Amino acid sequence: VEAGDAAQLTALLEPLHPADIADVLEQIRPQERSDLLALWGGEIDGEVLSELDESLREEVIGQLEPAVLAGAVRELDTDDVVDILEDLEEPAQELILEALEADDRAAVEQSMAYPEYSAGRLMQREVVTAPLHWTVGEAIDYLREHDGLPDQFYHVILVDPRMRPQGYVTLGRMLSARRNARLADLAEDSFRTVEGEMPEADVAYLFKQYHLISLPVVDAAGRLAGAITIDDALNVLDEEHEEDMLRMAGVGEESSISDGVGETLKQRLPWLGINLLTANVSALVISLFDGTIAAIVALAALMPIVASMGGIAGTQSLTVAVRALATRDLTSSNATRVVWRELTVGLISGLIFALCMGMMAWAFYGRDIWLGAVIGSAMIINLAVAALAGVVVPLVLNRLKLDPALASGTFVMTLTDVIGFFSFLGLATLVLL
Amino acid sequence: VEAGDAAQLTALLEPLHPADIADVLEQIRPQERSDLLALWGGEIDGEVLSELDESLREEVIGQLEPAVLAGAVRELDTDDVVDILEDLEEPAQELILEALEADDRAAVEQSMAYPEYSAGRLMQREVVTAPLHWTVGEAIDYLREHDGLPDQFYHVILVDPRMRPQGYVTLGRMLSARRNARLADLAEDSFRTVEGEMPEADVAYLFKQYHLISLPVVDAAGRLAGAITIDDALNVLDEEHEEDMLRMAGVGEESSISDGVGETLKQRLPWLGINLLTANVSALVISLFDGTIAAIVALAALMPIVASMGGIAGTQSLTVAVRALATRDLTSSNATRVVWRELTVGLISGLIFALCMGMMAWAFYGRDIWLGAVIGSAMIINLAVAALAGVVVPLVLNRLKLDPALASGTFVMTLTDVIGFFSFLGLATLVLL
Repeated sequence: VEAGDAAQLTALLEPLHPADIADVLEQIRPQERSDLLALWGGEIDGEVLSELDESLREEVIGQLEPAVLAGAVRELDTDDVVDILEDLEEPAQELILEALEADDRAAVEQSMAYPEYSAGRLMQREVVTAPLHWTVGEAIDYLREHDGLPDQFYHVILVDPRMRPQGYVTLGRMLSARRNARLADLAEDSFRTVEGEMPEADVAYLFKQYHLISLPVVDAAGRLAGAITIDDALNVLDEEHEEDMLRMAGVGEESSISDGVGETLKQRLPWLGINLLTANVSALVISLFDGTIAAIVALAALMPIVASMGGIAGTQSLTVAVRALATRDLTSSNATRVVWRELTVGLISGLIFALCMGMMAWAFYGRDIWLGAVIGSAMIINLAVAALAGVVVPLVLNRLKLDPALASGTFVMTLTDVIGFFSFLGLATLVLL
Repeated sequence: VEAGDAAQLTALLEPLHPADIADVLEQIRPQERSDLLALWGGEIDGEVLSELDESLREEVIGQLEPAVLAGAVRELDTDDVVDILEDLEEPAQELILEALEADDRAAVEQSMAYPEYSAGRLMQREVVTAPLHWTVGEAIDYLREHDGLPDQFYHVILVDPRMRPQGYVTLGRMLSARRNARLADLAEDSFRTVEGEMPEADVAYLFKQYHLISLPVVDAAGRLAGAITIDDALNVLDEEHEEDMLRMAGVGEESSISDGVGETLKQRLPWLGINLLTANVSALVISLFDGTIAAIVALAALMPIVASMGGIAGTQSLTVAVRALATRDLTSSNATRVVWRELTVGLISGLIFALCMGMMAWAFYGRDIWLGAVIGSAMIINLAVAALAGVVVPLVLNRLKLDPALASGTFVMTLTDVIGFFSFLGLATLVLL
């Protein structure tokens, strides 16, 4: 297809959903991508741009003709335009803003005035409103005569004369009511609004917790500013999850499978660098005991076992705690109970594996029963510390308003390594020498 | 409140959203929970049951009077009833089924006939359909006269005379069209259906990829069986993420912050047990070289650094690959490119940290420059292997139709430990002795 046959390419891409076209663009090589855009770029749809991975969007937008770009963004709802603008540099932003019609441009600029990752950035300005006193019939007649409705809408928002939202009616209820029924009588009792400044993570939580479909956004004066729909909330939820997971693994939160080598290195080296430092701390702890190791070389083989078991136990406890903090299932009201549970779990699993490993060490590494006792005791100490640290560290970070997913991993791992090596080699020095 | 004042308790809980009541139940202690249910259980709502965490649902249902339970489930849509039934034992299932009206019961039983985690289990039977040839006016008149519509609906599904879905019309478009417009002319072109057997993860993917709001489900004969709404898809997506994350950390995928000590131990011990075995493999590798360690004790302190850097690099590469497989951004068409990228990233970061660590080892652990050369070379080997394994292991598991999140972690960690210790101590034996 890359043989330059533009007509055939268009025929192939035309029937695809914009999201699938975006996937095609993401999966091919950069060179193929720019060839494809040169051939077919003129037909690109605004939806394709908004489906593209952020890391590629700038590259693709840079390759489009200004006129094509203008046509593409003009079809989009304002929230999608905002989403595209956020990731672009100044000159490219200007280019897109100039392409918009005057009132769309004003709406987009108003959204951009809200802080990044806030409800104001997520909302679309295209909402359907009706005065509180209208009947179903009046609303339907209005909708029938009105052009420029949003692509998708699920509610009619009821507003007072000063444009403050007072409730909403689902389209389903409106359709099943008589023409003379008052909209105010059909309003849902689950109605709520949020301010434009609310962080998007909180917005996504509201959608999930209360099964919302759309959520009106108000400005500081309580006037309707726009509405957020569930598909935006779903995206936020998805990104939050992804960021949590990538952050816990020490990969830049924006990393993507289509990044190049340079980008990937930039995201991963800092974390590896930090790990090099903390690993050297553990090495320092070990070298405190070089006399002991010289006397009993078997200790060198056994010590990573204690550290590794602590690392796994810490990660288990940490992952559950970070998840529960993200879903707000771990709160101050059950924190004490969870901390006690983790400590108990750590002690019991410590005891179980102390017995197993103690006997294995005694059996396979010769020597007397005291070697088994030393590795067993170190295992109990380290698993208890690991389980406890796994829940306390994220709780403390969360209390300090820091992201619990970000630094917990290194901290817990370093702690379990240091405690593991120190308790095992320390006990060995005391007991076996 | 636990002083037994039922009226005050009801007054407190009444204004809360069912999801919030469920959260209250999840966060209090088991004893408080059964006291609360004894006092207030009579007023419990079906919605509260469906919002409860699965791990608590059985406990709560066991404490309710059969008559109360029957009343509670009767209000629910069939998909919520199915969701509750799935996690119950036989006798409790029977109890609930008997409480349902005959046609709801038939609908629920039909859903339960589909395999677990399939589209058929997610769908609700309450759908709104209209014949293909109807006009907007006919549909609105029908909706106005019809009782028992679903709680929330967003589309009218167009069916042919044999109940095979042919398209759907959003309520928004219906409301803004003239009464004499034909429904078939307003149908969305994004229309698609799925079979009841489709795995729920694929269903959630479709919702996310194509921004769907509802998705009709058909039986093997192509007849309409029900519809899945976006709130169910959002739940599935959320659970998938959670399971991926918990599975990667070696915690049972159903673990929850409200589990007791016994439950938590049952989820975590298997993984710790596996780790004990793999850690012993690493210990075995180390003890192959006990002569070398006895001669140069500094090696014992330095060897965990090589293993730990490999572990982090492997986890980074693994996390990105597992996520990309889950979101279908990593496919056979870009796999080769991603594998090459990881190998390059592994080699370059290996070189960088080999230089750092080589110089540190030379400076701090005395000896000649060859110790630095040995740890540097081992670092390059291990980081390259780690980055490569991090992407190849999940790709292979995925090809074998196994869950890439499940076993990759242990496998990659064991590999990086073994390669780390073996290359470092092996090179040391060859070069330094």
